[in-house]
Amino acid sequence: MKLAVDAMGGDHAPKEIVLGVKRALREFNDIEVLLYGDEKQIKQYITPEDRLTIVHTDEMIEGTDEPVRAVKRKKNASMVLMAQAVKNGEADACISAGNTGALMTAGLFIVGRIDGIERPALAPTLPTLDGKGFLMLDLGANVDAKPEHLAQYAVMGSIYSEKVRGINHPRVGLLNIGTEDKKGNELTKKTFQLLKELPINFVGNVESRDLLDGPADVVVTDGFTGNMVLKTIEGTALSVFSMLKKTFTSSTKNKLAAGLVKNDLKQLKNMLDYTEYGGAGLFGLKAPVIKAHGSSNEVALYNAMRQAREMVKHDVSNTIKDAIKGSVE
Amino acid sequence: MKLAVDAMGGDHAPKEIVLGVKRALREFNDIEVLLYGDEKQIKQYITPEDRLTIVHTDEMIEGTDEPVRAVKRKKNASMVLMAQAVKNGEADACISAGNTGALMTAGLFIVGRIDGIERPALAPTLPTLDGKGFLMLDLGANVDAKPEHLAQYAVMGSIYSEKVRGINHPRVGLLNIGTEDKKGNELTKKTFQLLKELPINFVGNVESRDLLDGPADVVVTDGFTGNMVLKTIEGTALSVFSMLKKTFTSSTKNKLAAGLVKNDLKQLKNMLDYTEYGGAGLFGLKAPVIKAHGSSNEVALYNAMRQAREMVKHDVSNTIKDAIKGSVE
Repeated sequence: MKLAVDAMGGDHAPKEIVLGVKRALREFNDIEVLLYGDEKQIKQYITPEDRLTIVHTDEMIEGTDEPVRAVKRKKNASMVLMAQAVKNGEADACISAGNTGALMTAGLFIVGRIDGIERPALAPTLPTLDGKGFLMLDLGANVDAKPEHLAQYAVMGSIYSEKVRGINHPRVGLLNIGTEDKKGNELTKKTFQLLKELPINFVGNVESRDLLDGPADVVVTDGFTGNMVLKTIEGTALSVFSMLKKTFTSSTKNKLAAGLVKNDLKQLKNMLDYTEYGGAGLFGLKAPVIKAHGSSNEVALYNAMRQAREMVKHDVSNTIKDAIKGSVE
Repeated sequence: MKLAVDAMGGDHAPKEIVLGVKRALREFNDIEVLLYGDEKQIKQYITPEDRLTIVHTDEMIEGTDEPVRAVKRKKNASMVLMAQAVKNGEADACISAGNTGALMTAGLFIVGRIDGIERPALAPTLPTLDGKGFLMLDLGANVDAKPEHLAQYAVMGSIYSEKVRGINHPRVGLLNIGTEDKKGNELTKKTFQLLKELPINFVGNVESRDLLDGPADVVVTDGFTGNMVLKTIEGTALSVFSMLKKTFTSSTKNKLAAGLVKNDLKQLKNMLDYTEYGGAGLFGLKAPVIKAHGSSNEVALYNAMRQAREMVKHDVSNTIKDAIKGSVE
């Protein structure tokens, strides 16, 4: 299979992107890579390699670019060319660590939606305390969602978890402000009724306070709430860790303690690092589009490529297409 | 002034409630208290006191009761009688650590809305790393809010912060999924436009990841999102602390370290304990109604009473009434 990669997206591009690609090429002998970006910069990090083709372009989308405008105007941006390769059948999936909004736009308007899918969803795997993680969607592709959209997210998330994560009958939960069946706002109450009727393993409402314990394998929510909750988890964890750091450097006694637990604490912080769990899939598109975290290093990019490969291998897009078709007919 | 208190609400009722009331009576010589609940149980914790009147009742609302039904049927519940005392002018404000939904119902249907206020809002003061805290509303009184409701929250929060918290020109922020002006869903985009026109110190959008840094004195959001974010902060902080505890007991070396930093860590955990900041006000009602945290101890209940006293003293309800009237005319 062929994977198209945006070499210029992310805080540590192109170096860490190229290193991640090289690692994936070493690990998986069934992939070829089309790498889009500045040839001169990319070449610093590679040796000639049969299964890697550099497609040179000067143009790139910046993190600060307005997404829709950037995708429309920067026709030769590495991200745009990468998406076009998928559209033209030259690649089976694509990966970028660049501007999230622009990648969603490129996915939607270049790669295109699966027939019957009303809205794509951004679906990362988030960390849990037991290290298993869970899929949450939508994390911000669609901020004004309807119950029908959330029902489609549930189906897509369920298929992905079964095919790619190897979970039998994945438990699907609805993110809500209480676990009782009738809790919530208009959107979640209506969605609850729809999810009950679907051929999935719906386990009811789950609360945001329990997310790190992994109350379900797939957690469904609208893009506004999902994005809000993700940022709250990140912000709270970072704040607590920065308070800890302050505490541990506040006295000689505490510095001594810090020396003793340093490695264990680092491990603990890594547990909450979701770059370990691969990128966020943009579900509902005709081919896999993976958003790697903006701060992706070699390992994170490699994990995103592994994920794209699994999605292609297990034909996730077509399985979703058939499932949606089946539910419409 | 007279404060009505529900002696039977909360996990540690009536003991901690009564102790909190006694502390408030010692601290403030301008208050009298009407205490509603089981006289026999209450009397275990008090000595005769001129400024405290026990109003005996056998009935109480449980935490598991369905709020609307409980308030309607349990006409002699301590919480219901307490709200009625306010309605009848026998008390100037009321405080309960009981069932939140029931207190919101009692506030709305017994105490009553201020004319012109469309929806009351639940408004706790949340902790920040610098210890100053900020007011956030709505945290769940109204889960399907409209832009106009959020605009009223902004006005009410601004008045409260100025009058009770003593902040000049309190900074009012709108909770959103990005700081840029045009970010968000339909609700936040429309609300942004309304807030710009109000005679308040509107500082634009604030993100949930920054909340613990206190990006504004008042943060406005709809009840669904607010409740979700509050629970996410609580859940994440608790999870990180429970992971820490595990780490600190995982080896002899780590236990040694734990011994050294124990007190400082406890202090750190207390910083995130919002019971320190008083209860959550139910804003938009004809008189102050304060929800003390369900796990309130003596100090938390005392803080909630202090807050009720400040609200009465500074005539917050009437100031809100005048401001809303002014904005309508």
